[in-house]
Amino acid sequence: MKPSIPQGTRDFSPEKMVKRNYIFQTIQDVFHLFGFQQIETPAMENLSTLMGKYGEEGDKLLFKILNSGDFFSKISDEELKTKNAAQLAAKLCEKGLRYDLTVPFARYVVQYFNEITFPFRRYQIQPVWRADRPQKGRYREFYQCDADIVGSDSLLNEIELIQIIDEVFRRFGMRVCIKLNNRKILSGISEFVGEADKTVDITIAIDKLDKIGLDKVNDELRSKGLTEEAIAKLQPIITLKGTNREKIAVLQDLFQSSETGQKGVDEIRFILDRVGDLPLTSSVELDLTLARGLSYYTGAIIEVKALDVEIGSIVGGGRYDNLTGVFGMAGLSGVGISFGADRIFDVLNQLNLYPVDAQQSTRLMFVNFGEKETQYLLPHIHRLRQKGVSVEIYPDAAKMKKQMSYANAKKIPFVALAGANEIANQIVQLKDMNTGEQRTVTWEEILLTVNG
Amino acid sequence: MKPSIPQGTRDFSPEKMVKRNYIFQTIQDVFHLFGFQQIETPAMENLSTLMGKYGEEGDKLLFKILNSGDFFSKISDEELKTKNAAQLAAKLCEKGLRYDLTVPFARYVVQYFNEITFPFRRYQIQPVWRADRPQKGRYREFYQCDADIVGSDSLLNEIELIQIIDEVFRRFGMRVCIKLNNRKILSGISEFVGEADKTVDITIAIDKLDKIGLDKVNDELRSKGLTEEAIAKLQPIITLKGTNREKIAVLQDLFQSSETGQKGVDEIRFILDRVGDLPLTSSVELDLTLARGLSYYTGAIIEVKALDVEIGSIVGGGRYDNLTGVFGMAGLSGVGISFGADRIFDVLNQLNLYPVDAQQSTRLMFVNFGEKETQYLLPHIHRLRQKGVSVEIYPDAAKMKKQMSYANAKKIPFVALAGANEIANQIVQLKDMNTGEQRTVTWEEILLTVNG
Repeated sequence: MKPSIPQGTRDFSPEKMVKRNYIFQTIQDVFHLFGFQQIETPAMENLSTLMGKYGEEGDKLLFKILNSGDFFSKISDEELKTKNAAQLAAKLCEKGLRYDLTVPFARYVVQYFNEITFPFRRYQIQPVWRADRPQKGRYREFYQCDADIVGSDSLLNEIELIQIIDEVFRRFGMRVCIKLNNRKILSGISEFVGEADKTVDITIAIDKLDKIGLDKVNDELRSKGLTEEAIAKLQPIITLKGTNREKIAVLQDLFQSSETGQKGVDEIRFILDRVGDLPLTSSVELDLTLARGLSYYTGAIIEVKALDVEIGSIVGGGRYDNLTGVFGMAGLSGVGISFGADRIFDVLNQLNLYPVDAQQSTRLMFVNFGEKETQYLLPHIHRLRQKGVSVEIYPDAAKMKKQMSYANAKKIPFVALAGANEIANQIVQLKDMNTGEQRTVTWEEILLTVNG
Repeated sequence: MKPSIPQGTRDFSPEKMVKRNYIFQTIQDVFHLFGFQQIETPAMENLSTLMGKYGEEGDKLLFKILNSGDFFSKISDEELKTKNAAQLAAKLCEKGLRYDLTVPFARYVVQYFNEITFPFRRYQIQPVWRADRPQKGRYREFYQCDADIVGSDSLLNEIELIQIIDEVFRRFGMRVCIKLNNRKILSGISEFVGEADKTVDITIAIDKLDKIGLDKVNDELRSKGLTEEAIAKLQPIITLKGTNREKIAVLQDLFQSSETGQKGVDEIRFILDRVGDLPLTSSVELDLTLARGLSYYTGAIIEVKALDVEIGSIVGGGRYDNLTGVFGMAGLSGVGISFGADRIFDVLNQLNLYPVDAQQSTRLMFVNFGEKETQYLLPHIHRLRQKGVSVEIYPDAAKMKKQMSYANAKKIPFVALAGANEIANQIVQLKDMNTGEQRTVTWEEILLTVNG
């Protein structure tokens, strides 16, 4: 029977790894450019750290680790008889696999509070695990790529996160739209129409405008109990179009009696003004329908959409005023973004945007003609590697065809041959595998050619 | 209550991550130089893949993942009553965490056999998990760093692995001794003394010479049932000293009637001859007491010892003739090495061998004097980042002292100040945080200074 891997998990082949490394390395380089520092946390966290942080549904999606040793000794016969999976799991397991990078980060900040220099600009690129039903594009193990700044209320942080996003996608050569919203604007809207407690319902309904049309949005608002007066007041907001500046002017006007709304408008204006001074590649757009993680975010809400491929958001983020409250430490504000590596991988694949040099490793392979030739070659190969050239020698004196097809399969651009005649004359036959051209070169020339 | 992490696991702070990344990046760069390709496998494997591969003790040390959903439904009341942890674990869990990188690699090779180009030079750098009793220097989650070549019997592979080891430690600036042995030589020794079935006992006893002395080694051999004649014949081997060449000459002579022993000597001579042609930094030494993984290796055995720090082996490896046999695919030979990242981390720390630029990230921080100054600075900072300089601006207009101590704590080498006067004159006050020197520079000069 052929071995396999668990549902929803993946192996990454060398070809995929090269592309994934390119993605992670690019993002990491940009994080460094902005002074972010990396941390890593263990795959396993105590269940007491994880449980209750992701809602009831989230608790069910945690992968739990069976305790070691005689794990049944702590369970009474009575309890066993109930066969209550959730209750027994709590007795059988003390540890679980990380579900995201945010809760471990919050735990880290509380645990090492006195050693951390705030504002703490941290990034983290690690896998997370969720016992979701596997489906297309959704995995049970996947990487998250998070950057957060904690311990500063300054809107400069939001601005820098936007710059980071722009720089990452500029390097990828991907056209994106960076969408912004603000929780305070959403609150302002519901205050303005006199339904302050219905912020979530209103936002969800507005979000559907493009898909279901204005009439059905209004129907949904009615079904959520909004008065006709409130719905009437909402109309100019739902259908708000125009430039960022125009939208802000309208909101500014509407929010005269909503302090929260005013504050949201001030924040978004400040961010857009500063960002407007910079020669960014991506467009940045105020989008009032943006509502991700509404229960969580307290200020800016950020989302990125790819312009040339139909796919969900590829970056998400925002400001949260109470990262560490769940661990008993109040008052720490943070703002962060998370890159969706799997989706970015798909987009770069579809648009064929990987740089050529991200697709090969070995530059030069020497054909193996036998022991004597190999003995001659090894010191030469050693020297080439010392010069930084990635070189292989085929390990066995196999048939030429086999050796060449190995080089082909590994997409090695140059193959070198040195038989008795070449050895005697201190030369090498160098074949360019892309053009098929073969020529005689000296050991000095080989370095120039393969590095070119 | 302060949150914590499970016993035997670790968080890695930014300072540690920089050092760990330096280690992994160096090893990875060298792997690439030799044409190795990276793969990654999932953290979770099916327990059917893992169980029975690491001996009975190993099975107990696997972290098992509790099945999702109603995991008790498959267990009868009868079975529950037994409270037999091992049996019930098999019913409660279908998945486990990776215990090493070798078994997942073997599984990978069998699963994707038709897509792989052989000889397959793969490397893999990923964490593994073991439910070991935590103790100093032993963790329940740690990284392994493996490079293997599978599908080639050529001894060139052993030679290249030795070159890889040498190049890695040359780059680290660490003095090491690369120790070699060969399973066939160990078999030859036991054949030579007429105790062919006692290879393991003999090797283990010889291995203790330095610690317990010759008399006690001989006592141990007696206790294992070796005849006095066999022990007498062993004496010149146990006490064998000299250069590699001298040792080989003695063995060559002794092994006249052991075909296996002869083959082992031929192999080691070939490897040492070729390696001797190369200008390696490390010494390579034939060590007959080297016995690691004896039940597993069938040819070369490789181990690396640090010369300037007392610590266990920092690299281990060897040739195995049947990597994939456990998954029903016979005849695939492989040879590989595994770098012990945690121990290398300790050695580099003790010897203070980390390069200075592996210890900082941000090159330049701008002091934040307020909104107006920030507005002026942002486009300048953007340009500096476009030139590749890692720059931060302190996000809040906090007290100078606070901002400077942030720069100090993050070991940022340059701090720049631009107030009203500097802005008017298009200059910046640049402070070198190492020398304390502060001078006035133009925007053109700043780039040259901080990159210098």
